[in-house]
Amino acid sequence: MGTFPVNTWYVAAQSHELGNKPLGRTICNAKLVFYRQADGSVAALEDFCPHRGAPLSLGRVCEGQLMCGYHGLVMGCDGKTVSMPGQRVGGFPAIRAYPAVERYGFIWVWPGDAAKADEATIPQQHWHNHPDWAFGGGLYHVKADYRLMVDNLMDLTHETYVHASSIGQPEIDETPCKTTASSDEVVTSRFMHNIPAPPFWRAALRGNGLADDVPVDRWQICRFTPPSQVMIEVGVAHAGHGGYNAPDSHKVYSVVVDFITPETDTTMWYFWGMARKFKPKDEALTAQIREGQGKIFSEDLEMLERQQANLSRWPERGLLKLNIDAGGVGARRVIDRWIAAETAT
Amino acid sequence: MGTFPVNTWYVAAQSHELGNKPLGRTICNAKLVFYRQADGSVAALEDFCPHRGAPLSLGRVCEGQLMCGYHGLVMGCDGKTVSMPGQRVGGFPAIRAYPAVERYGFIWVWPGDAAKADEATIPQQHWHNHPDWAFGGGLYHVKADYRLMVDNLMDLTHETYVHASSIGQPEIDETPCKTTASSDEVVTSRFMHNIPAPPFWRAALRGNGLADDVPVDRWQICRFTPPSQVMIEVGVAHAGHGGYNAPDSHKVYSVVVDFITPETDTTMWYFWGMARKFKPKDEALTAQIREGQGKIFSEDLEMLERQQANLSRWPERGLLKLNIDAGGVGARRVIDRWIAAETAT
Amino acid sequence: MGTFPVNTWYVAAQSHELGNKPLGRTICNAKLVFYRQADGSVAALEDFCPHRGAPLSLGRVCEGQLMCGYHGLVMGCDGKTVSMPGQRVGGFPAIRAYPAVERYGFIWVWPGDAAKADEATIPQQHWHNHPDWAFGGGLYHVKADYRLMVDNLMDLTHETYVHASSIGQPEIDETPCKTTASSDEVVTSRFMHNIPAPPFWRAALRGNGLADDVPVDRWQICRFTPPSQVMIEVGVAHAGHGGYNAPDSHKVYSVVVDFITPETDTTMWYFWGMARKFKPKDEALTAQIREGQGKIFSEDLEMLERQQANLSRWPERGLLKLNIDAGGVGARRVIDRWIAAETAT
Repeated sequence: MGTFPVNTWYVAAQSHELGNKPLGRTICNAKLVFYRQADGSVAALEDFCPHRGAPLSLGRVCEGQLMCGYHGLVMGCDGKTVSMPGQRVGGFPAIRAYPAVERYGFIWVWPGDAAKADEATIPQQHWHNHPDWAFGGGLYHVKADYRLMVDNLMDLTHETYVHASSIGQPEIDETPCKTTASSDEVVTSRFMHNIPAPPFWRAALRGNGLADDVPVDRWQICRFTPPSQVMIEVGVAHAGHGGYNAPDSHKVYSVVVDFITPETDTTMWYFWGMARKFKPKDEALTAQIREGQGKIFSEDLEMLERQQANLSRWPERGLLKLNIDAGGVGARRVIDRWIAAETAT
Repeated sequence: MGTFPVNTWYVAAQSHELGNKPLGRTICNAKLVFYRQADGSVAALEDFCPHRGAPLSLGRVCEGQLMCGYHGLVMGCDGKTVSMPGQRVGGFPAIRAYPAVERYGFIWVWPGDAAKADEATIPQQHWHNHPDWAFGGGLYHVKADYRLMVDNLMDLTHETYVHASSIGQPEIDETPCKTTASSDEVVTSRFMHNIPAPPFWRAALRGNGLADDVPVDRWQICRFTPPSQVMIEVGVAHAGHGGYNAPDSHKVYSVVVDFITPETDTTMWYFWGMARKFKPKDEALTAQIREGQGKIFSEDLEMLERQQANLSRWPERGLLKLNIDAGGVGARRVIDRWIAAETAT
Repeated sequence: MGTFPVNTWYVAAQSHELGNKPLGRTICNAKLVFYRQADGSVAALEDFCPHRGAPLSLGRVCEGQLMCGYHGLVMGCDGKTVSMPGQRVGGFPAIRAYPAVERYGFIWVWPGDAAKADEATIPQQHWHNHPDWAFGGGLYHVKADYRLMVDNLMDLTHETYVHASSIGQPEIDETPCKTTASSDEVVTSRFMHNIPAPPFWRAALRGNGLADDVPVDRWQICRFTPPSQVMIEVGVAHAGHGGYNAPDSHKVYSVVVDFITPETDTTMWYFWGMARKFKPKDEALTAQIREGQGKIFSEDLEMLERQQANLSRWPERGLLKLNIDAGGVGARRVIDRWIAAETAT
């Protein structure tokens, strides 16, 4: 059985990565090239010129058409050659085209059966372009199975150890989490009351013009949806104002946005970011939070890559499934169900 | 079937690379060491000391003899040990010696059956040490099957795309090439008339004291001879003076010199250079042309290496054989014939 | 048959490498983590957290206990989990613990059957903490079978070639060595009389306040003991004072200390050093000798790594076993006997 479903949408790139040059990127073991057409819409193809096998991603985009950089073959967005200097191209073999859509500031691609691709199933991002929200994020390439990142994000007790100086605090370990699973969603949540805010959240409070030296309530609501999106509602409120339900004037409330895309079976593209619901117009604050989050999330990378190396070295060893792992275990159950359904048909 | 013939001469090094130290280099999957003997002549051996397997290329040359740098074994140019401190060496196993010759500014090696090596078959280089000619060149290591470079050089339509800012121009694409093949030679040629000269050729015209802003005739005559030499007559003449046949006073005429030597099945040593038949004593011009050509030819490397990566990833995919590919296709036909002949015997 | 015995002690680290952080290191193909317990004693475990497979070497040491850096699991020195926040750990699978001991300034580990580990069999280092002796050393990682280093150290004729500018001199080649083997020891020795001292030894003579421009007697007594320790008595004495047996006032006398530990079948950890029996309190001299030796010994690394590459490329080729190789050949015979004995049981 494979390690990921393919009849689904994955984030392939951040919108700003795709300018007027083609972008080569492997997604779910498929070597792809992405480019923008004349109307700005995105196309995705196999990164293979049918003429001599050159990577189309080394080419250029001319008036919205992808041109091979080796001998000038012009490729259509459907994978059929449009033209080539001095050649009749009708008989050229087609390359595979992949459904691709730009939405919510990302490029989404459907690596599986194109006939089944439905843009309506791209998960809505309510914070995108909303006047109450601001977003900043980035991309990491990680040499680990994408599911190790899902595990990581669905069990935040690791914050106490991996991110001790920023968002970790012993109260996370001390507060049990609660995990629920419906057919296609797994939620694990933790609510902490009357605790000190750790450094990252103290800075966020100050960024929102709130006192940072008073007790807070803190929440973490991790929500996995397949194939590999983890949205985490996070924040702190001054204690005594209702916690998660406190009015915006007494809290800092954000959503950690995670799109985790398999590159290969043991490597991933990790799109991370934070959508916040305070001071949305403060661009300096956006940059500051983005930098802080980028630094924190980079702390996970060595751990995951060396965890992957260990698992590859000892493939026969089972892992423990503790209560704190229930989120990741539930997420893998959903993933396995999706893969099995694809395999059956 | 292998990817290259072995009963033939390949260029292994430029003469100036081989000073008074041994040179280790893999040629046609054989790990070799080259060195100069007392009379300056070249010897080539397996890079393996029969004592403990140390690479002889880490040793030194003492009075024209190759001495292992580990324990002082002195190796003869025939692969038989000459001496070793305190040892009788008569029973030492021999290592393989390879025919090697220095000629035309290069070191040539014969990787196959030594009994068949005939120095008379080393291809003549008429430009070498000729008073009317000057030469400059260099060496690139390329992680691609050497035949991809043959293809590249036998189809110069790629200049329009890969070398757009130097030697490329749309007229190359617009002018059909003509390809002819005899038993052991493939020639593909293109003649363009009354066109603007691209930047590289404008500079060459100026270097020869000619106007660079007038229409020119341009020619490209690519000549493949096995195993993997591609000589390309190139140049431009002021239009109206006879083109390729114009007198030297109205043109710039050069030969692109390409010796392409397999290192392994998917890597190569690419010896490139340009022999020019104008201003042969102008060493500054030689350096300038060499630098320009080196920069232009380096533009092919990423393309070929990533093309190779694509072909290795999709080995089952056939490549198109268009009219522009006739030169490369013909060259591979000759190569395959040579390999088949070797395999048969 | 394997390449190394496992029911024996190997040096895994220098004492100063192991501070208050865990140290990850592969020894004999086993991926291990070392750390200091509360009393300073050393523990060694598989570098694998039973919870999710994270490497424990990325964790920290808290009050002498090893804590996983991912989710805070506390591992005991016996490989059984001690505790984990919010968890009952009684049923957690154990990881393997390895006997480990700190002695003579090094961390020793027993990669094989723990029941057979006997600290009494750690080889005594008479120079350690002895008022007449001083020691300086270092560690090199070498991409070669550890036995190639044993060969290297048991045949010092290579000094003439690899270390020509420091300890090499033609008299080494000219003076036959004598090799003797008992059941578990191989000794190869060479005594040279009335020769000039090479640069390294001239500096040592000066360091001991002795004239460096007079003829000397020089000795090299290489002693291999399994699994892979080579101690080499080396030194020079002013000629005419008894050579090896000269009084300390007329000689410089040292022991080259070599512990060679397999990392994998084709890579090693090479712990090198020099214990000297002159001016033991002169720390500047210790530093100077250590730097000189480190530079000299680094000259072997490229040779051994490329020798290994050659042997891996031509695995079917036998190596010569000359008289100068008798030390290494004898050492391998002992090693093979040890491995065979382990395999038999």
